Amino acid sequence: MSGWLAVAGLGPGSAGLVTPEVEAALAEATDVIGYGPYVARIEPREGLSLHPSDNRVELERASLALTLAASGRKVVVVSSGDPGVFAMAAAVFEAWEGMPEWRELDIRVLPGITAMLAASARAGAPLGHDFCAINLSDNLKPWSLIERRLRLAAEADFAMAFYNPRSKARPGGFARVLEILREACGPERPILFARAVSTPEEALKVVTLGAARPEMADMRTMVIVGSSRTRLIERARGPVLYTPRWAE
Amino acid sequence: MSGWLAVAGLGPGSAGLVTPEVEAALAEATDVIGYGPYVARIEPREGLSLHPSDNRVELERASLALTLAASGRKVVVVSSGDPGVFAMAAAVFEAWEGMPEWRELDIRVLPGITAMLAASARAGAPLGHDFCAINLSDNLKPWSLIERRLRLAAEADFAMAFYNPRSKARPGGFARVLEILREACGPERPILFARAVSTPEEALKVVTLGAARPEMADMRTMVIVGSSRTRLIERARGPVLYTPRWAE
Repeated sequence: MSGWLAVAGLGPGSAGLVTPEVEAALAEATDVIGYGPYVARIEPREGLSLHPSDNRVELERASLALTLAASGRKVVVVSSGDPGVFAMAAAVFEAWEGMPEWRELDIRVLPGITAMLAASARAGAPLGHDFCAINLSDNLKPWSLIERRLRLAAEADFAMAFYNPRSKARPGGFARVLEILREACGPERPILFARAVSTPEEALKVVTLGAARPEMADMRTMVIVGSSRTRLIERARGPVLYTPRWAE
Repeated sequence: MSGWLAVAGLGPGSAGLVTPEVEAALAEATDVIGYGPYVARIEPREGLSLHPSDNRVELERASLALTLAASGRKVVVVSSGDPGVFAMAAAVFEAWEGMPEWRELDIRVLPGITAMLAASARAGAPLGHDFCAINLSDNLKPWSLIERRLRLAAEADFAMAFYNPRSKARPGGFARVLEILREACGPERPILFARAVSTPEEALKVVTLGAARPEMADMRTMVIVGSSRTRLIERARGPVLYTPRWAE
């Protein structure tokens, strides 16, 4: 069995944030599989088959990748950001676990720059102390679990990074998140909306929870809320948001 | 003022995990500043001054970097992993905040592959659902806060990534962490010890909390504990640890 499967992170958008390890896997690949907009980032070349697919078909995509790798192809599944953070790696292992004949397939996960760390870098260092990462989509978990985690994260005084804050299918969910956070963290706590970081459409906005509005986020926005210690410093070239390394 | 300061992440060790953006900043730099072992990863060249320093002098290092940048030098502060995660970016902004004359200095943070995501990739996808990251060092925060966060993170059923699990100065702390986790998560919960990921000394071990021993970690080890849903699947080429995307 000479085929292999690499689940690779393309980072948030800029070519300057794609690792050499991922570039090397793409250069050797016979097949690239992923959500359409991510596959569109791959340069076509002779001998490389591109397999773009729709959103929300992660398990079908994973099964195709595993089937091709088992047949001897060299397959890269591409994710935005890091494949291990709310992305394709878990879906590949879910599909893989169900099929014992794939157990000894050569599967590697190649890390990438995940959205929260790209957004954090652009804004300063809001995740410089203990923090948590929560996917706000309730496609695959009950809404009550999201609310419970928000309250416990606030009680633990974590900085919080939120993926998938808002979609057309759940217009009210993010408004409720902001309400819970205002109640648990107070209206003065800073919140960062970082849209399309490292792409030409990049836009950053820092406000307080009291001034935050649901429409400040869409599905291309990473949202980061500071801990009680996070500092916001204004300057001409845009505010700096950072969380000191120490706590009392 | 033509000087600038970039706080750059070198990733966990392998050259294949350093981003092109970081390489470009290093190629332009006149000065590289950082903890000795990280500065040792930079190729010396004419016109580049290397400033290695000891551990635990983050603020002195940050002040030197800011002073040099303010004087017109092109300065890269190097961190292992990602500079925004328990690393130099927060220290640079702490030093910067105290000195209003530096307010408009050109400071950028260049993200890198942080240890928890490199470790997660090697083991499968243990951080594939909601998770938190906690620094277990009590140099800069009280031990009681660490214990409190551990209990709340377990209650939220986060997967947990632990930085700086164990040092000679705090030999008993990590034993206590394992006790708390066994009590809060039960003895069957899987725990990953990932040492020196992506370097020639890389070593991974997955055990249950019941079988975990403090000496399985040192300061080069990243520790990840699964959530209640994390799956451990044995195979000939080493176990796979992943957390499904869904929850009930």
